[in-house]
Amino acid sequence: MKITAMAGGVGAAKFLSGLVQVLPPEEITVVVNTGDDFRWMGLYICPDLDTITYTLAGLDNPVTGWGVRDETYQCLDRLRALGCETWFALGDRDLATHVYRTQRIQQGDSLTEIAASLSRLNGVAARILPMTDSPVPTMVHTEDGTLAFQDYFVRRNCQPQVQGFTFEGIENASPAPGVLRVLQESDAIIVCPSNPFISIGPILAVPGIRDALRESPATILAVSPIVAGEALKGPAAVMMRQLGFEASASGVASLYRDFLDVFVLDRRDESLRESISALGLQVRSADTIMSNEASRVALANSILEMLS
Amino acid sequence: MKITAMAGGVGAAKFLSGLVQVLPPEEITVVVNTGDDFRWMGLYICPDLDTITYTLAGLDNPVTGWGVRDETYQCLDRLRALGCETWFALGDRDLATHVYRTQRIQQGDSLTEIAASLSRLNGVAARILPMTDSPVPTMVHTEDGTLAFQDYFVRRNCQPQVQGFTFEGIENASPAPGVLRVLQESDAIIVCPSNPFISIGPILAVPGIRDALRESPATILAVSPIVAGEALKGPAAVMMRQLGFEASASGVASLYRDFLDVFVLDRRDESLRESISALGLQVRSADTIMSNEASRVALANSILEMLS
Repeated sequence: MKITAMAGGVGAAKFLSGLVQVLPPEEITVVVNTGDDFRWMGLYICPDLDTITYTLAGLDNPVTGWGVRDETYQCLDRLRALGCETWFALGDRDLATHVYRTQRIQQGDSLTEIAASLSRLNGVAARILPMTDSPVPTMVHTEDGTLAFQDYFVRRNCQPQVQGFTFEGIENASPAPGVLRVLQESDAIIVCPSNPFISIGPILAVPGIRDALRESPATILAVSPIVAGEALKGPAAVMMRQLGFEASASGVASLYRDFLDVFVLDRRDESLRESISALGLQVRSADTIMSNEASRVALANSILEMLS
Repeated sequence: MKITAMAGGVGAAKFLSGLVQVLPPEEITVVVNTGDDFRWMGLYICPDLDTITYTLAGLDNPVTGWGVRDETYQCLDRLRALGCETWFALGDRDLATHVYRTQRIQQGDSLTEIAASLSRLNGVAARILPMTDSPVPTMVHTEDGTLAFQDYFVRRNCQPQVQGFTFEGIENASPAPGVLRVLQESDAIIVCPSNPFISIGPILAVPGIRDALRESPATILAVSPIVAGEALKGPAAVMMRQLGFEASASGVASLYRDFLDVFVLDRRDESLRESISALGLQVRSADTIMSNEASRVALANSILEMLS
């Protein structure tokens, strides 16, 4: 069974780390959000691509979920001494990825080629694709004005009230090579438990991707990133409320209803089953909270059963 | 007394670390070789500027002489895992300097401006000037062909037999802003105990600098980098032999005779006094081996006495 997953950062990475244990990873393609990408001190940083790659490589930091395990911050300490802004906590080991990527970008290589190299060099067997090779930075419109994503997310810790998002330049962006094809040729497409606005939203906004999902013969399944009204991680629930949506699994389901076949909610949210069915979706439930490796594998097995 | 020093890397840095303890550092300008500069993984690296700055900031690595003390190599280890060439041992703390410099170069700032910022941010009171703002990479012509400097110096450990040097683009380079003026206005100019071919040679090859030295009213003094036929550090003596020069203090003096007033040889080389006098130079002697801080200060005091 060929599976394509659409993924943001930490939540998706946890889910995928279970999936690669129950399916041959060579059969899995991950299409990753690049709206979070940014330049810092001249370095080209792709937080979601790196989180997915590190996690599938077993290099992930179990404390933070992002970055590399056994990390040190010597370079950052020196940059702070040089008066640089250091609110983005870049570790020494993580830095190597950004130095490597930046050099290849300067050489004219595409994000797709670089992501493939980083996967291979880190021993990841799943195929990791950026959603697009073009920079399409997420801009967060807030009560404090329009903020670059990392400014909102890291520096201001998601505090400003959100009014909406734009992905700069997305109208002229194309899906990365291979993306439309895997969406067409997969047996199943999984929308990972990621933030619908800032992780899955940018992927769906790349011209051609949402249409490809609507037209794909694959079974398309989404795993809710919201359980009992709260996000498993990050600001998804808060954003939903700020944007006037119901902060619930059904709120998420409504955002995907035009292309989705199956919505997976947490067992704690069984009460929402009916409202999601009313959207014309099949509803399944599972234990979606991935507190340890066993629960990640169990969730992956549950999803596979639903798809078979 | 205003002093300008012409400097390469480790030997010069040791000498200057003594000089700033016997003279107000604000009165000292250091004109630094940039022929060693290179790009690695997209980063703009200036080994001699950094060695001088780190040493005068008290950040120098007492074991290697170059790089930063208390260094770690986490980023380099990861780059090695990504298949990058890692024969240039870049530490995590050192890396911050190159990330900082590269970003400012990309923003259009000059090496002179960046060197001044790095001095100030690291608390160095002496003025540090690159010899030129233009890249003029040292190329080493050897029996194995023409090699980029770091390839010859670090990767091949100075093994190939040297036939000559060129500094690419030097014919179109200008002295960095301020260099000609300090050479004109200094009371004394000191040629540090650095390699005459690859440290002092590139400085002298910048159009205008050698003429400015010949015309300067300052007393110009050189400290021999060769003691008893051997270089204090690095390949200077070997290069002299390979290029057909006498590997001795008098061999070095002959290279500077057109602009030099005073040549300082080590007490061990008193026997060379006559041959250097015959070049039309004043000859003085001192203990030039700087094995510890006291000897650095003692050498600086000896030089000051000679100049006063």
